Amino acid sequence: MAQHSDSFWEGCFSGRAKQRIRSSAIRELLKLTRQPGIISFSGGLPAPELFPVEALAAASERILRDKPSEALQYGPTEGYPELCEWIAEQHQVEADEVLIVSGSQQGLDLLGKVFIHPGDQVVVESPTYMGALQAFNPYEPDYVSVSLSEAGLDLDALEKALKSGPKFIYALPTFQNPSGVLLNLEGRHKLVELAAQYGVPLLEDDAYAALYFSGKPLPTLFELDREMGSNNVIRLSTFSKTLTPGLRVAWIVAPKVVIRKLVQAKQGTDLHTPSFNQMLVYEVAKAGLGPQIERIRAKYERNRDIMHAALGANLPSQIAWNRPEGGMFLWLRLPEGMAATELFKRSIEQKVAFVPGEPFHANGGGENTLRLSFSQPTEAQIREGIARLGQAAESLMVTASR
Amino acid sequence: MAQHSDSFWEGCFSGRAKQRIRSSAIRELLKLTRQPGIISFSGGLPAPELFPVEALAAASERILRDKPSEALQYGPTEGYPELCEWIAEQHQVEADEVLIVSGSQQGLDLLGKVFIHPGDQVVVESPTYMGALQAFNPYEPDYVSVSLSEAGLDLDALEKALKSGPKFIYALPTFQNPSGVLLNLEGRHKLVELAAQYGVPLLEDDAYAALYFSGKPLPTLFELDREMGSNNVIRLSTFSKTLTPGLRVAWIVAPKVVIRKLVQAKQGTDLHTPSFNQMLVYEVAKAGLGPQIERIRAKYERNRDIMHAALGANLPSQIAWNRPEGGMFLWLRLPEGMAATELFKRSIEQKVAFVPGEPFHANGGGENTLRLSFSQPTEAQIREGIARLGQAAESLMVTASR
Repeated sequence: MAQHSDSFWEGCFSGRAKQRIRSSAIRELLKLTRQPGIISFSGGLPAPELFPVEALAAASERILRDKPSEALQYGPTEGYPELCEWIAEQHQVEADEVLIVSGSQQGLDLLGKVFIHPGDQVVVESPTYMGALQAFNPYEPDYVSVSLSEAGLDLDALEKALKSGPKFIYALPTFQNPSGVLLNLEGRHKLVELAAQYGVPLLEDDAYAALYFSGKPLPTLFELDREMGSNNVIRLSTFSKTLTPGLRVAWIVAPKVVIRKLVQAKQGTDLHTPSFNQMLVYEVAKAGLGPQIERIRAKYERNRDIMHAALGANLPSQIAWNRPEGGMFLWLRLPEGMAATELFKRSIEQKVAFVPGEPFHANGGGENTLRLSFSQPTEAQIREGIARLGQAAESLMVTASR
Repeated sequence: MAQHSDSFWEGCFSGRAKQRIRSSAIRELLKLTRQPGIISFSGGLPAPELFPVEALAAASERILRDKPSEALQYGPTEGYPELCEWIAEQHQVEADEVLIVSGSQQGLDLLGKVFIHPGDQVVVESPTYMGALQAFNPYEPDYVSVSLSEAGLDLDALEKALKSGPKFIYALPTFQNPSGVLLNLEGRHKLVELAAQYGVPLLEDDAYAALYFSGKPLPTLFELDREMGSNNVIRLSTFSKTLTPGLRVAWIVAPKVVIRKLVQAKQGTDLHTPSFNQMLVYEVAKAGLGPQIERIRAKYERNRDIMHAALGANLPSQIAWNRPEGGMFLWLRLPEGMAATELFKRSIEQKVAFVPGEPFHANGGGENTLRLSFSQPTEAQIREGIARLGQAAESLMVTASR
């Protein structure tokens, strides 16, 4: 019996797998960042020294002593009831308006599965979160991009997009991954009102909502919508940025009819999020996340300051960047016509890495943009890494000006 | 602004969500089994008193002390490398032929996503695992059912099905959920050979592979296929039945080209299975699963014996059942024309529950069949529960004979 070739198997893949589930060129590039000695600003990784390890260890001991069967047996698809209640209280909703998911990424997959029919239009910000595109792609949507900048969303483009009858809007209003942009209060009102006016559901992905460095947090899109009484927003958030990403616990808040359908979809997708992990998160969260979040904010704010200053000291003046008031990311813009992938290659030679911005654009563009993550590196790494980035950028400028 | 009605949201759902992601009538029935005082033979739940709680608690302490960052940070989509290596060794394959998944259920979802194009034919056993149908349904296959009984698969029907050009065969050769059937060696050879001969990939779901009560385990479909050298089998198995289901750790073994595509699909689906959970499972598994599996086998075998004897002592002679040599399930057959859902209603009145067999049949049928799980209840519960089931069955027979 002859052994199947790779092309046999590739021929067996579904159309969606052949066309819409692919490794991106950027992911291939990012493999280069695993070399020893590289200072990486690429991954969106929380700082591991801030994980509440002792609290989790104590919770683990308690849970396995007091409730081992509940922690280790099959559990309800909806989520660990106490955790659902806790999240419901935070959002002032009922527990059956909450679904626990295995990381925000699973939330995006389930929402894609339940809402996107092949050929449906989905409105996304440009740039938008690359992982959302990866989650939605297998369900074969077309994307309508609305440009997002420090000035906010392009409202004219948004209204035009809404007129074309899209399935939903996908927005990251708070310290967006990748751009770090915070949508201001007026922009939030406008977005929520336009979505409701056109009857287009609004999916709010708010992973960084707790990471304001200063000032009072703005109301969420979910809150503004509920105040208006239109019930048009589905909210997605996570414990990945406040507690730890490795436990994979996140949640969706949505109208009950949507939660019911998502539960049915999740049942076929992974039965339930691990009970033990949900109980760990619940034990630590109910004791109060405040001090934990304060530590994270303080470190990230300091890192942001150091990176921002280092950029000013080291980068050629033709390059622009922002100064986000929270989150984990800074967004850089090279002069038009200059490719961030070219800067990436030179940076890797200098042993410093980032993520080129192009794959965050659903319909292309952004070749001259890039994302720097400031959450994980040490202060010394930031200073040294940005100095190296400056050298790589200088050399690119010299070549470009020839 | 008017609040959206349920029908607004239902109108937004994708075609797949409207037509193929639904709550089954049986799931609604099973909600009745949550009443207090019910003896349940319905859930496929492992016995929680056999969970290796102390070993897991010790492993948790060690991991959070020695490797907290690795356990709690984002991890590779492929899986925790040491666990991949361990599974690869067990299967005598390379580590990059292994993917760790968040429970077998996620394995089924990913395989559906990567292989099934709407309208593709998928060959399933009849009966088959209901959860697989739930996983595959959103990808909109048509099913071709091949009947499975204690005598094995209907090979004529299988060959006819293979001629129609299906995408893959989905088989559960070992103590199948729901029927408890063990496919014998000849049946295994025949299935593997026919699949290879027709060039139709064979997906082996082998969750109960470790639960042989006696005798030497048969070679897996994967082993038979690799011996033949055709590389036509994808194997799916899990730690849910040997360690604990609540951690949601399972695996797929497949040709590298398939693993690579599954990794890309998983990246968009949940990024990765929780690192902490994989490390817990690895720590306990590498210390040796033998004694743990022996305890499980001993209890389940004894429960099987007690249930089998109780059925003989309590059930009307018109009802037939099997005596599986392993696994967690017994399969009953009522006289033709008699409905297991009717028996279910009478059983609930007697405060005993099981799962009617109909939803395990992809193309209908099996209305007179039902599944009893013997893994979780105590011996006293089995004796009492089967006595109650006998009363419910007697009353159904009396009504039927009127």
